[in-house]
Amino acid sequence: MTVKAYGAYAGDKPLESMDITRRAPGDHDVQIEIAYCGVCHSDLHQVRAEWQGTLFPCVPGHEIVGRVSAVGEHVSDFRIGDLVGVGCLVDSCRHCEECEAGQENYCDNMVGTYNFPTADHPGHTLGGYSQRIVVNERFVLRVRHPEEHLAAVAPLLCAGITTYSPLRHWNAGPGKSVGVVGIGGLGHMGIKLAKAMGARVVAFTTSESKRRNALALGADEVVVSREAGAMAAQAKSLDLIINTVAVPHDLDAFTALLKRDGTMVLVGVPASPHPSPQVFNLIGKRRAIAGSMIGGIPETQEMLDFCAEHGIVADIELIRAEEINHAYERMLKGDVKYRFVIDSATLAG
Amino acid sequence: MTVKAYGAYAGDKPLESMDITRRAPGDHDVQIEIAYCGVCHSDLHQVRAEWQGTLFPCVPGHEIVGRVSAVGEHVSDFRIGDLVGVGCLVDSCRHCEECEAGQENYCDNMVGTYNFPTADHPGHTLGGYSQRIVVNERFVLRVRHPEEHLAAVAPLLCAGITTYSPLRHWNAGPGKSVGVVGIGGLGHMGIKLAKAMGARVVAFTTSESKRRNALALGADEVVVSREAGAMAAQAKSLDLIINTVAVPHDLDAFTALLKRDGTMVLVGVPASPHPSPQVFNLIGKRRAIAGSMIGGIPETQEMLDFCAEHGIVADIELIRAEEINHAYERMLKGDVKYRFVIDSATLAG
Repeated sequence: MTVKAYGAYAGDKPLESMDITRRAPGDHDVQIEIAYCGVCHSDLHQVRAEWQGTLFPCVPGHEIVGRVSAVGEHVSDFRIGDLVGVGCLVDSCRHCEECEAGQENYCDNMVGTYNFPTADHPGHTLGGYSQRIVVNERFVLRVRHPEEHLAAVAPLLCAGITTYSPLRHWNAGPGKSVGVVGIGGLGHMGIKLAKAMGARVVAFTTSESKRRNALALGADEVVVSREAGAMAAQAKSLDLIINTVAVPHDLDAFTALLKRDGTMVLVGVPASPHPSPQVFNLIGKRRAIAGSMIGGIPETQEMLDFCAEHGIVADIELIRAEEINHAYERMLKGDVKYRFVIDSATLAG
Repeated sequence: MTVKAYGAYAGDKPLESMDITRRAPGDHDVQIEIAYCGVCHSDLHQVRAEWQGTLFPCVPGHEIVGRVSAVGEHVSDFRIGDLVGVGCLVDSCRHCEECEAGQENYCDNMVGTYNFPTADHPGHTLGGYSQRIVVNERFVLRVRHPEEHLAAVAPLLCAGITTYSPLRHWNAGPGKSVGVVGIGGLGHMGIKLAKAMGARVVAFTTSESKRRNALALGADEVVVSREAGAMAAQAKSLDLIINTVAVPHDLDAFTALLKRDGTMVLVGVPASPHPSPQVFNLIGKRRAIAGSMIGGIPETQEMLDFCAEHGIVADIELIRAEEINHAYERMLKGDVKYRFVIDSATLAG
């Protein structure tokens, strides 16, 4: 079945309208008419071949929401008409230790929603900048938000789970102080989620102009990280830091803000390495620097349900498909509050 | 009271015999006639002013064992004649969150056994390369090993607790695979302790010649880290790595050996930074790089008791005080299995 999509034929070419094919749903597949797809910074890195191994044509997009339009014979949990989501992965080996634990995101053979080998044409997965997607039922999430919020739900599938998972894993909650570094697509979700979990939230930004926005998102305190005095005032005060900044920066400035046994979790991968962190900064208070990557399928469902219950969605700017190249340029300048979302209805042209 | 010690008057001077004074024991003090003192790599860094802030004259030594020779009026737990130890700290603020938790090693005002400000002459603490030390009872440890093993107990007070504490904190034990990187003073204790805790132990060394030694120490497997194939065979197999190597090296080669949620704990501080670790290596399996610094007083006692129960001591080479400068040169070449210990009886000359 041919559907409309937006993608690129080479790393130095802009995204353009293209036709792609989707398989007919197999026995365990769910076919989804995509309503909205969020625009993640990873999309830009991959489609521009800034990361290694981009397979062309490349159709990005892994923050997908829509409505079920067909189900395979053995699908019992989803019905035509259901509101559903698809995040960063559409398959995994399903039997390794990670998959058994519901941590498919850490499966060595996980299949990303785009740019991963697949049996389907053209041999690699094509993402959510498209009208339709067909996904094995295990990787389909149920959306329980009201339908009028659907566009703003889309970014939860990556930006939401990427911050939710480490907040849960490192026990953010009442009595805990959580720092969120960077107030962008990931950071703005981190603030909302940590606050909803009951933690005290301190937001860190390099720009004074973001102070008011961070407070509006729910931060209890905002620190402009370029002010040494403001940083020093937070020394040894945080249990956990979610660091969303994907450009190289001084990690020591933040690890110094952790209490004993505190952890800073990196969720962004910079194109070149961070300056090497000082070992003494870790040893002196038994601190850790860790990494976390999206989340498993059961946890992603838990996150969506948590957000539905707490009325949490992303702050978005809805765009038409043909605006995507311009949106990338604006994203590079940080000129978006806080996530672009493509209205898939505009793919038809 | 004047006693004999070995120390240096400047960073570029060799250690020599000197007279120092010890305070008369106060109400809560324990006076200890030192029998043996281990020689830690930190001693060399500090006394040679390779680390900042060395206070001269400098008398190093924080792996102290000996016998109680006097106690203050209010000391109830120790008696004259008891076998005791003193480790890396001789005081702390005693009332902060860390001290309340028995984590005096992480107290912001902890007083190291040497080179820390004190009211005693000459204004900074003087360590265990001396005949006697006077220490507040809270910082005195009980030694339950047979007296004939006393010299080999000394290194437990730093090398032992530095590896024991992270092994316990990160739950080394049956069913867990623990890597120990570097087979020196710290690493040889790490192997013995992790094995005694019931873990599977994989030792990493750069030198084929240490293979047999590591097996003799109790390692289940030994990997020569310069052999890429041998390293690759361990990929994603370890729950925990204790990395004792204090010279800059490629951390990624070791984090890649951790399972999901595994942690590599750095216990050595290199003089210049390690190459910056790859973020993706952490994110891809939710791994962490952490630091750990010695241990608190209750945990140090626990470690000593654990070692006494399991018959664990360090492997040592006993030296006379006047051999210390030569021992430092040998230590720099890694020419010691695995810890020098000064026989304090030789301080008298």
